[in-house]
Amino acid sequence: MLSKFDGDVCSPKGFKASGVLCGIKKSKRDLAVIFSETPANSAAVFTQNKFAAAPLVVSKENLKNGIAQAVVVNSGNANACTGTQGISNAKRMAELTAKLLRINSSDVLVASTGVIGVQLPMNKIEKGIKEAVKNLKTDGGKEAACAIMTTDTFQKTVAVKTEIGGAEITIGGIAKGSGMIHPNMATMLGFITTDVKITTSLLKKALKESVEKSFNMITVDGDTSTNDMVAVLANGLANNNVIETEGEDFEKFKSALDEVTVTLAKAIVRDGEGATKFIEVEVKGAETFEDAKTVAMAVANSNLVKTAFFGEDANWGRIVCAAGYSGANVVPEKLDLFVKDFKLVENGTPTDYSEEEVSEYLKNKELKITIDLGLGNQKATAWTCDLSYDYVKINGSYRT
Amino acid sequence: MLSKFDGDVCSPKGFKASGVLCGIKKSKRDLAVIFSETPANSAAVFTQNKFAAAPLVVSKENLKNGIAQAVVVNSGNANACTGTQGISNAKRMAELTAKLLRINSSDVLVASTGVIGVQLPMNKIEKGIKEAVKNLKTDGGKEAACAIMTTDTFQKTVAVKTEIGGAEITIGGIAKGSGMIHPNMATMLGFITTDVKITTSLLKKALKESVEKSFNMITVDGDTSTNDMVAVLANGLANNNVIETEGEDFEKFKSALDEVTVTLAKAIVRDGEGATKFIEVEVKGAETFEDAKTVAMAVANSNLVKTAFFGEDANWGRIVCAAGYSGANVVPEKLDLFVKDFKLVENGTPTDYSEEEVSEYLKNKELKITIDLGLGNQKATAWTCDLSYDYVKINGSYRT
Repeated sequence: MLSKFDGDVCSPKGFKASGVLCGIKKSKRDLAVIFSETPANSAAVFTQNKFAAAPLVVSKENLKNGIAQAVVVNSGNANACTGTQGISNAKRMAELTAKLLRINSSDVLVASTGVIGVQLPMNKIEKGIKEAVKNLKTDGGKEAACAIMTTDTFQKTVAVKTEIGGAEITIGGIAKGSGMIHPNMATMLGFITTDVKITTSLLKKALKESVEKSFNMITVDGDTSTNDMVAVLANGLANNNVIETEGEDFEKFKSALDEVTVTLAKAIVRDGEGATKFIEVEVKGAETFEDAKTVAMAVANSNLVKTAFFGEDANWGRIVCAAGYSGANVVPEKLDLFVKDFKLVENGTPTDYSEEEVSEYLKNKELKITIDLGLGNQKATAWTCDLSYDYVKINGSYRT
Repeated sequence: MLSKFDGDVCSPKGFKASGVLCGIKKSKRDLAVIFSETPANSAAVFTQNKFAAAPLVVSKENLKNGIAQAVVVNSGNANACTGTQGISNAKRMAELTAKLLRINSSDVLVASTGVIGVQLPMNKIEKGIKEAVKNLKTDGGKEAACAIMTTDTFQKTVAVKTEIGGAEITIGGIAKGSGMIHPNMATMLGFITTDVKITTSLLKKALKESVEKSFNMITVDGDTSTNDMVAVLANGLANNNVIETEGEDFEKFKSALDEVTVTLAKAIVRDGEGATKFIEVEVKGAETFEDAKTVAMAVANSNLVKTAFFGEDANWGRIVCAAGYSGANVVPEKLDLFVKDFKLVENGTPTDYSEEEVSEYLKNKELKITIDLGLGNQKATAWTCDLSYDYVKINGSYRT
């Protein structure tokens, strides 16, 4: 039995965390450390942006042996487009954290988020790391979740428990998102901890598949950032029979991990910049998962669809239009479209639906649409938000 | 010598046009006819949206022989997602136009733009076609340009003259655009007429290449519509030596055609829904044209870049970020970025540019940015507009 609760990265056995204010941002927490008592099998996925930021370069290098024991993260400054100086600074963050924790510096992952192209204020960062390490505690997960936020308006945390291989295991996570959320990772950071015992290669596989169905299925504005990263640390302290093959235990672990990643991903969309509505886009009846995903993301990314939802307008034309240009295999004469349970389009042409009833439903804050392609049995779900005046306002004046 | 002037589809020899009010829209012209005295070699490019609207299906069929003599267009109703009834209605538009003009119905191209999923009001359309044919005149191009508009705020027309093969030839065009402008054609109609004598196969090749550099390089909101179409009719009445090979004359024709398509494409961006700024994105130093185009369009399509321009913010980070996720071959350490002549980024990291001078420049209505990838000598230019409050307003309430 899987149970979800209001936990975070400190929920699994053997993890501590902290979040402090070091002064990169004016008056908010801006530096976090997550620490495992013992070295943990670890995996991560990184942005596909060619301008991958310095901390990602360093984290990738440090993850080569599949082991990590700590994560250090700052917000307010992305350490991106900062050249060799940026790389040195990211390395310095790992080294100082390692020294203070008396661990190997190659077992520290580094992440940053915030403004691009400005060198990190290293004396503030160093002071912050010292304070954060000193403050590490078993209930510091919420503080850490706060310290990684940028334009986020609420902290994003979750944890789940389940039984695997004769033991109770826990997975906890924190994330930050807000603007620039898009597939292939976005200005999105996610840190997941677990006490499950699992091989690095299976952990890696589970994370990759889970991200594909969660963080890569959300979109706020379609841009993919330079700093995205989702990492998972599995320290094995639950003492379950180690997961080393792809059997039932692995599937159970994946379901539990999906619960964490999907919950965090949806929280990111709910907190999309200027969002007033949360929209689930389900695509079924596709020939392939790729097609289902392509259609779902095309609809979720469409500015015209997003503004129509902001205007509470059942503009199904824009939805089928997005399906049509997505590039996926779509046969107009076979497509049905539902808003909640209202069938608006059948076999590619509009039905006699009640405009009034649908309009009433569109006043809700949480909306669901379903597209049935009528071609197969594959499906995918994407999550998005509407595009509002406030989105333009926030992004027209982010730096100033 | 190429000269550009305030002409339209009636500028070349032997063309007439008209635009009338038939009542699909409440009080604006909504039906246009363009007519050539003699059958014209013709070519067209159509939307790649799988939900291609009924008129496009009919026009494609009618273009199979490479000949057209008239175009009939309505605005206010897209005749898209209208099933078999929609196809019959589009055919009926061609047949009635042909009958009244005493030409072959397979020599009539049909286009529609407007709301999706509603059957055409055929009695209004039929009345409109009769009136439009009766009103055909040698100075009706501006009226026709008005009649194809939807949310456009001004009509888009242009013409050029040049000498080819011993004769003066003229090319004229009208277009409509506004929302949903995107590569691979968007809710974008373009009709081009010319009196040049050219083979159908070369006309087709010239149009395809020209669209690739013009209509496919603009973006307002990234959506690709069900109704896009650009058609060209060449009636040969200029009596130049026929262009039948890819020599100098063909190149001259292509340059002249590019002037028409690029002018119309830029006019569409300038009139983008809610646009307050017009932005030219030049990408040079690319290894391939595809890479240059991919980077230019990624930057031009980025909501974050577009809102930053609306906010008059020199947010170069968002621009390099878009280049980085575009998928093109980009090497951060080689990329330079200019806003006008101000170099903001050199070899992937920011310079000591004057924030004040750049901010002053960003107050202009017409802006230019240049990205030099430093990898080769291919280039491409895209045109876009900013993303404003009014974009959200217009699109949040389009149908209501």
